[in-house]
Amino acid sequence: MSEVIIMKELLGENTRIAEENRDLYKKDKVIMVNIMGAPGAGKTTLIKALTDELKSRSVESAVIEGDLFSSIDADKFNDNGVKSVEINTCGECHLDAAVIKSGYDSLGFKNGVVFIENVGNLICPAEFDLGEEVRIVCASVPEGDDKPFKYVPMFSYVDAVALTKCDLKEAVGFDTDNFRKGMDAVNEAPVFETSLKKGSASDPGVKGLVDFILKKS
Amino acid sequence: MSEVIIMKELLGENTRIAEENRDLYKKDKVIMVNIMGAPGAGKTTLIKALTDELKSRSVESAVIEGDLFSSIDADKFNDNGVKSVEINTCGECHLDAAVIKSGYDSLGFKNGVVFIENVGNLICPAEFDLGEEVRIVCASVPEGDDKPFKYVPMFSYVDAVALTKCDLKEAVGFDTDNFRKGMDAVNEAPVFETSLKKGSASDPGVKGLVDFILKKS
Repeated sequence: MSEVIIMKELLGENTRIAEENRDLYKKDKVIMVNIMGAPGAGKTTLIKALTDELKSRSVESAVIEGDLFSSIDADKFNDNGVKSVEINTCGECHLDAAVIKSGYDSLGFKNGVVFIENVGNLICPAEFDLGEEVRIVCASVPEGDDKPFKYVPMFSYVDAVALTKCDLKEAVGFDTDNFRKGMDAVNEAPVFETSLKKGSASDPGVKGLVDFILKKS
Repeated sequence: MSEVIIMKELLGENTRIAEENRDLYKKDKVIMVNIMGAPGAGKTTLIKALTDELKSRSVESAVIEGDLFSSIDADKFNDNGVKSVEINTCGECHLDAAVIKSGYDSLGFKNGVVFIENVGNLICPAEFDLGEEVRIVCASVPEGDDKPFKYVPMFSYVDAVALTKCDLKEAVGFDTDNFRKGMDAVNEAPVFETSLKKGSASDPGVKGLVDFILKKS
């Protein structure tokens, strides 16, 4: 049996479970948001800011945290009073619908927003539907303005982009027009710019992203 | 047949071809260097600096450039007078020994150093032996000082670390001691610090890395 056929079968099974997940989230009145991005793109910091902004609007949220081995990121949420579960992929490069189902069940959460922090990887997660309602890629300014041109499957896959660490634009010579040109070539998804180093309380990008997510309810 | 068994068979075949590659490089007096790292870690910029430094020491070099779809990076080398070939993985998240064999054959290069720029991914490439002599992970300062703790397979797999974009340490609050603590926990590989924004002519990290590579000849 060839690698391609096996991959198609695995993805078929994943899509079936993702559909079941989608029905479950709808029944539970949960907006499931899949946050993807490269290592160090700022996914954890962004999710913390989004949970804070939701709290200020009296919307409950929780986090399903994907990590290769450690529990560093999940600990950060628990310390912050946001309910979270850890999924250790034991080295796997993505999360799939079955592990998300299991993580979601153990959360025991209803009526609000659940964020999935995917494994730090700008390639593989774009092949696995998790049944989510919103897909966001977190792309950081220091990664460079050419990323939408180079990581086409991921930037095509998402509903919105969080362009993070925008306070570093000048330091790294980031060309925002080139980044947007790359996005326009592959996707009509909106780009929200964030700078969270000094906190998120008044960040317009975070507010915009939360508006975007809540429109899906 | 389970996913695990299939993966083992595929990796077994990869290891067999990697051994053949290793013999070939030795016969051709080529030091093969596999440069891995997350998207935007600065792999291309580092390789350009290393080829320049080798040129100043009268050592020839060439590049095998892995990209998902585009030829953006290979074009940069050809513009710079360094022989390069492009491998388009058509979305695959890593390079394997067979595609490297094919890329190497089409280079037609002997007596010097060949750099492989792997696909931007801090996870999957650490499972695929390419027959290389030296493995380097490129980790950039803005990705954060916790990466060796979180991406253990990659940081365990390498012979050396290039810590790039060190000029941004203060701007992002990078804790070098924590990074080195993470490395010490998984690997004795040396860490070379580079800052290449203003050129590489006198960068001690680049000189150190070239010394390190040439010791393998």
